[in-house]
Amino acid sequence: MGEFELIKRYFQHSLQPAGVALGNGDDCALLAPAPGMRLAVSTDMLVEGRHFLSTVNPEALGHKALAVNLSDLAAMGAQPLAFTLALALPRADETWLAGFSKGLLALADAHGCALVGGDTTAGPLNICITVFGQVPEHQALRRSAAKVGDDIYVSGTLGDARLALEVFRGGASLSAADFAAVRQRMERPTPRVALGVALRGVAHAAADVSDGLLGDLGHILAASQVGADLSADEIHNSIATSTILKSAGGQFLPDFVLNGGDDYELVFTAPVAARPAVVHAAASACTPVSRIGTVTASTGLVLRGPGGQPMALTSRSFDHFA
Amino acid sequence: MGEFELIKRYFQHSLQPAGVALGNGDDCALLAPAPGMRLAVSTDMLVEGRHFLSTVNPEALGHKALAVNLSDLAAMGAQPLAFTLALALPRADETWLAGFSKGLLALADAHGCALVGGDTTAGPLNICITVFGQVPEHQALRRSAAKVGDDIYVSGTLGDARLALEVFRGGASLSAADFAAVRQRMERPTPRVALGVALRGVAHAAADVSDGLLGDLGHILAASQVGADLSADEIHNSIATSTILKSAGGQFLPDFVLNGGDDYELVFTAPVAARPAVVHAAASACTPVSRIGTVTASTGLVLRGPGGQPMALTSRSFDHFA
Repeated sequence: MGEFELIKRYFQHSLQPAGVALGNGDDCALLAPAPGMRLAVSTDMLVEGRHFLSTVNPEALGHKALAVNLSDLAAMGAQPLAFTLALALPRADETWLAGFSKGLLALADAHGCALVGGDTTAGPLNICITVFGQVPEHQALRRSAAKVGDDIYVSGTLGDARLALEVFRGGASLSAADFAAVRQRMERPTPRVALGVALRGVAHAAADVSDGLLGDLGHILAASQVGADLSADEIHNSIATSTILKSAGGQFLPDFVLNGGDDYELVFTAPVAARPAVVHAAASACTPVSRIGTVTASTGLVLRGPGGQPMALTSRSFDHFA
Repeated sequence: MGEFELIKRYFQHSLQPAGVALGNGDDCALLAPAPGMRLAVSTDMLVEGRHFLSTVNPEALGHKALAVNLSDLAAMGAQPLAFTLALALPRADETWLAGFSKGLLALADAHGCALVGGDTTAGPLNICITVFGQVPEHQALRRSAAKVGDDIYVSGTLGDARLALEVFRGGASLSAADFAAVRQRMERPTPRVALGVALRGVAHAAADVSDGLLGDLGHILAASQVGADLSADEIHNSIATSTILKSAGGQFLPDFVLNGGDDYELVFTAPVAARPAVVHAAASACTPVSRIGTVTASTGLVLRGPGGQPMALTSRSFDHFA
């Protein structure tokens, strides 16, 4: 099977939304966002042995490779439009390709996101996706837009993917049902696209939680030149901490919640007056959100323990070269 | 040096053209093409040991990684606007990063093309660039637009990069000056952006010659459902065959010219009535072009030898998995 045959067999994608003027098969794709729209662009690279193990289910990997990129669009409030895929493969393994493309294109179809081009090459397994989404001109959720007094929210639950990793590493054990649930969170994360779009005009700042809550909230705080006050108890008692993680034992709290990574939830800020609008946005997107703290004028992040006293912070936001 | 420090030190790019609404540092970049414009998107991945050797000069590699992407924009007649860079590195080698970013950003500056986002990770060396360019709504040079009777042209010279590779492999020898010249063609190719833009409204179809003239012209013919008639003599006597390649010996002709690859020239078709306009476009872009054949109604490609008789064709368009 040659390169062109490989593309034709596994990555032919007939989806062509209105904003795509020319799909794959030429030197470039042509995107045509509507007047007044912004095209959001994000790129992520997944490397075998670093972001996933060689034993991972290829269908789950295809899902995840696109999901992590869609999560970046969600964090801007952008509606997915199209993506490109660059793929380095040790060899053209048809079973792997069939599974990978199935998982990838199923998620693409679910979000109306067209595969419009790419590159395939031989080499150590590497998946590089660049995704494009549309957002109206003045409604993008930027990291720099948090205001003092804003509430801080996070979607879904945190730390479950990290708990699954711990089970794989032998550091924790779970019932089969609980393990299946957290493994799903690690291998097939749900990008919060509907929530991001619903938060346009409601939230001030947003980021996706890919490297851990403290690290990604930290990016918002730094970009907005503000601080934050969080309560560990409120986080653990909110829906943001899953019952599975709570029942897995206190030694994983609060570290997995605060620094777990691979969550692909949204952390965002919104003014106090927007509380009903946040509740409405969360309900319309069928996505639970938890209010976990407040944006403060003093730069830096304070995490308060049970008695309200500040806890020592250990942000271990993932750094590939640290 | 951590990941964020790495990005800050080597890939901070202050260029923000009018069409870029938000550059790097957020979850996504925001591009804002003008009304009536199309955003052309292309992605290419370069893998160590496959597309370049570990001994390559990092500055030249930075140049080439972007150049091959800009070449795709050129083939659509698109003006470069912005690009993303995903980089897997075995380690954060500062000498390598300094050279690579210097070569990359110098070429980006030369084309007004802003680095607006990306990803860095540990892993086997892999460079994945996705580039965005603008082209007016109905002026993109598509592969499918060749018409029967069109002239076929190619820019610059063909086969020089392939000759440099042959010298590296020990299969040919050249004077130091000639080797330096063809090595430059291999390591620091010139994307024909100005020519592509100048050919808007003049050329019908275009593609960039990255895999060899026959292979890439073949893509135009297949997409346009037409054929081509080329004369080997005319090609060798035209400026498309460099004096260095001619003097290197007949055993490399016509193979390196027709199937060399890594040329990053443009092959394009234009109506006979547009001959003066093609000459004008080439002059305005300071890029030589050669007229090398004609588009025919019969599908397939005929290459004629000295007496006008068809020659056997061996298109060895590069396939990573064949």
